[in-house]
Amino acid sequence: MSEATTTDLYEVTMAMSYLREGMTGPATFSLFVRDLPPERGFLVAAGLESALDYLSGLRVGPEDVDAFASALHRHPRDLQPLLGLEFTGDVRAVPEGRIVLAGEPLLEVTAPLPQAQLVETYVLNQLSHQTAIASKAARCVLAAAGHPVVDFSLRRTHGPQAGLRAARLGAMAGFAGTSNVAAATALGIPAVGTMAHSYVEAFATEEEAFRAFARCHPGPVTLLVDTYDTEEGVRVAARVLRDLDRGPGSAVRLDSGDLAALAVRARSSLDSVGLPEVRVIASGGLDEYAVDDLVRSGAPIDTYAVGTRVGVSADAPYLDSAYKMVEYDGRPVMKLSSAKVTAPGPKQVFRRTAYADVIRLADEQSPGDGSPLLETVMRGGQRTGGRTTLDACRERLAADLAGLPPAARRIRNPVAPRATASEHLSALARRVRRHIDEQTSAPYARPASP
Amino acid sequence: MSEATTTDLYEVTMAMSYLREGMTGPATFSLFVRDLPPERGFLVAAGLESALDYLSGLRVGPEDVDAFASALHRHPRDLQPLLGLEFTGDVRAVPEGRIVLAGEPLLEVTAPLPQAQLVETYVLNQLSHQTAIASKAARCVLAAAGHPVVDFSLRRTHGPQAGLRAARLGAMAGFAGTSNVAAATALGIPAVGTMAHSYVEAFATEEEAFRAFARCHPGPVTLLVDTYDTEEGVRVAARVLRDLDRGPGSAVRLDSGDLAALAVRARSSLDSVGLPEVRVIASGGLDEYAVDDLVRSGAPIDTYAVGTRVGVSADAPYLDSAYKMVEYDGRPVMKLSSAKVTAPGPKQVFRRTAYADVIRLADEQSPGDGSPLLETVMRGGQRTGGRTTLDACRERLAADLAGLPPAARRIRNPVAPRATASEHLSALARRVRRHIDEQTSAPYARPASP
Repeated sequence: MSEATTTDLYEVTMAMSYLREGMTGPATFSLFVRDLPPERGFLVAAGLESALDYLSGLRVGPEDVDAFASALHRHPRDLQPLLGLEFTGDVRAVPEGRIVLAGEPLLEVTAPLPQAQLVETYVLNQLSHQTAIASKAARCVLAAAGHPVVDFSLRRTHGPQAGLRAARLGAMAGFAGTSNVAAATALGIPAVGTMAHSYVEAFATEEEAFRAFARCHPGPVTLLVDTYDTEEGVRVAARVLRDLDRGPGSAVRLDSGDLAALAVRARSSLDSVGLPEVRVIASGGLDEYAVDDLVRSGAPIDTYAVGTRVGVSADAPYLDSAYKMVEYDGRPVMKLSSAKVTAPGPKQVFRRTAYADVIRLADEQSPGDGSPLLETVMRGGQRTGGRTTLDACRERLAADLAGLPPAARRIRNPVAPRATASEHLSALARRVRRHIDEQTSAPYARPASP
Repeated sequence: MSEATTTDLYEVTMAMSYLREGMTGPATFSLFVRDLPPERGFLVAAGLESALDYLSGLRVGPEDVDAFASALHRHPRDLQPLLGLEFTGDVRAVPEGRIVLAGEPLLEVTAPLPQAQLVETYVLNQLSHQTAIASKAARCVLAAAGHPVVDFSLRRTHGPQAGLRAARLGAMAGFAGTSNVAAATALGIPAVGTMAHSYVEAFATEEEAFRAFARCHPGPVTLLVDTYDTEEGVRVAARVLRDLDRGPGSAVRLDSGDLAALAVRARSSLDSVGLPEVRVIASGGLDEYAVDDLVRSGAPIDTYAVGTRVGVSADAPYLDSAYKMVEYDGRPVMKLSSAKVTAPGPKQVFRRTAYADVIRLADEQSPGDGSPLLETVMRGGQRTGGRTTLDACRERLAADLAGLPPAARRIRNPVAPRATASEHLSALARRVRRHIDEQTSAPYARPASP
C-alpha cells in the first residue's frame, strides 16, 4: 500500500462516484482555519513541504486499489477507475513560516474533482498538525525574549514522526537546537543534550558522575544538578567545572522545583566561585507561559528547554481547520449549515500594514496596497520551485513576527488581527447564499447572476 | 540512519560514558505515569507492541554512529564503542489493553546500563502517546453506553503515523470502525465512511447528489444531510432511500448544529415515512463529554463518530510519564528532588478486587490475594511470545473495564482508584532515602542495610 491509502474512506467513495458520473471538471478547495484557539494571536503556516511531497508522490497503485476494494467490500474491478490516479492539479499556498490569520486560506488546490477530493485527508492532516505546533513554538521564542530556546519534546510527542516534525518546526520558529538526534542530523540543526537523573544515580556520588561525564566529553559540558539537593548539586558542579577548567561554554541544568529561585541561587553560587561564564539552563514542563513568567521575573536563566507541552501544543493540540470546496466547474459554491458557513470562490490574501489583511477573490484586480500571501507552488502536479529551506522559513517567520501588532504577540490574552473580506468576495457570498435560499427544496449552488 | 537515532542526544552521551567507565552492569528502569490527568479515572496500557518492535529491531549501525558523531561534533571513532549495540535485555510489562493506575509500572526494562538508557526516549514516546489515546478512546466507549463508536480522527492527528495509531487504539477500546483506509486494511478492522459536504455541493441539488451516491454504491449508504438545511436534507434523504428501497442498513449523518434536537427531528421524519430502520449517525467535534451529553439526553442517535478531540486526546494530550532507574548493579536507587520522588527497586503490581492495587517489590513473595499485572514479554532481547492481537487487547480492556468502580468510569469528575505500596516497598524507600539524606555532601544511593 502507498500513502494513497492514508485517507478517509469517504474520499474514495466520493472519487468513485465522481468518476462514474463523469464529474472530472476542475474544482478548487480552500484550506483554512476557521477560528484561532483562545490563546493564539496568530498562526504560523507550516506543513506545506510535507503536503507537496505527498501530492507529487501520489499514485494509486494496484495494492491501493485492493485496499480500497477490501475496505468497501467491493470487487477490485469496481475500483479500477482509480488505478493510476495521480495528482495533476495546481496548488497555491502560503509559504511555510509566514503568519496567517483566521479565515485566510493556507492552501488552495485546483484539480479535477476526484483528485482534489481524494487528497483532502492527508493535506489537511499535515497542515493542521504542523501549523498548530509551529504556532506554539513561535510563541515560545517570543516569550523567551532573546534567550535561546531548545526542543526536548521527542519523548512525549504523538509518535516519533511527530517528534521529527516538532524539531523541524521549532527550528523554523528560531529554536537554537533539538535533543532529537535523527532530526538534528536530517535537518542540519544543532543537537543539544545533557544527562538524565539516572546518570547521576548510577554513580556512587554526584561528583563522581560529573567527573565521569567530563572525562568522556571534552569541551563544554552541561551538568544536571537537581537529582538530590539542587543547591548542593550546583556547588558540586561548580567545583568540578573549576577543577577541570571547563567553565567556558558549560552549564548547569535545573529540571524541577522553583526554577526562578533556584536559578538565582545557582547564579550566585557560580559567580561566587568565579564561574560567571557558566550558563544556567532551565527545563521541566516548560512552555511559553512558564518561560514568560521566568523571563518577567528576571530569573538569571540563559537557555530554556521546552518539551512535551510544546511538542503536542498542549493548550491547543488541534486547529479548527477545514478543507472546503469553493468552486466547481466554474461556479462558486458554499456551505450554509449552522455556524460553519464557508465563503465561495478561489481566494488571495493581501497583507497590509499592521496585519489589516484583506481576503479577495483570486481573480479580483490586485489592490493598490498590500502584498499577496498565496504563491503558486505546484502546477500540473509538478512543484514550480525547489524545496524550501529551513533557513528561508525561519527568515519569513522572523520578518512576519517583527511586523505583528504587540497585542497579537502577547503570551496571555493575545488579540489576533482579523482579516476582512473584499467587497467583491462579500457580494459573491451574498449572491450564492441568496440563490441557495431561494431554492430550499432543491438547493442549487450556482449563483443567480454570473 | 536507523531508529537508533530517534533518541535524545543525552541518551547517547550517557551511553558513551557508561561504556568508557565499564558501567555495563544490569540496570532496571521503570516506566510509569506519576499522576493521572484531571479528567481520567484510569489509564489503558498501550504502545507495548510498538516498543517491542523497536527493541527487537534496535541495532546501532555505521550510519547511526556517523549521525551520533555529527550531532556531538566528535570523530566517529569516539563513537565506535556504540557500533553494533543491540538490545539484549529483559522486559516485563503490562499487556496492552489492561487498565493501569498512577504510579504503577507500565513496563520495566532490565538490561546492561548503556542499553537500558539508550532506549528511554523511544519507549517512553510510544507508551506515553498510545496510553493517552487509548485511555481517551475507552472513555468514549463508556460514554456511548453500548452505541457503536467509530474513529474519524485521521485528518487532524499529529501526522499520519499518529492517525494509524489512533485507529488501532480506538479498535482496542471497542470502536466499531475507522474512516482510515490504511489502518482498516493493515489492522483488519472495519472501514467506515460517508460523504463530505463538498460532495453534495458538487451536484446541482442535494437529491441529485444522494441519487448519484446510491448509483455508485449498492447496498446500504450513509447520506450527509446538513449541507444546506438539515431538516430538508433528512426529507430528501428519506425520499431517495425509500424510492430506491435502500433503507435497511442505511443512515443519515448529522455533522453540525444542535445534534440532539436535529436527531429527534430526523428520527421522527424517517419514522413518519416508514423508514424506522434507517439509522442516525452523529459527528462533528464529538468526544466523550459530548457523547455523554447526547446519550443522557436520550437523543435517538445510533452511532457516534468521534474524531479530532479523541485522536489528539484534546483535554489531556500527554501524560506525566517517567522512565526512571530503580536499580543498578543490584542496588536500589531513587530520585529525591522536589515533588518527583521515585520509588526504588523493580516492582510488580497486584490487582485486587475493586482496583485496590498493591505495588510490591518484584522479588517479594507473592501475596495471597490479587493477580500480577506485569508479564515477562522479552528475555535476552527476544520476545517471549507472539505478537498480541487486537482482539486480545480488546478483550483484556473489556474485562478490566467491567470490574472498574463506577466512580472511575464516570466521564465527568471521575475518581481514580489509588494503588498502595507494600510494606516492603515503603521500607526500602525509607532506607534509601535515609541513606541519601545522611550523605548530603556525597549522596550515595546504596541502601544503608542490604
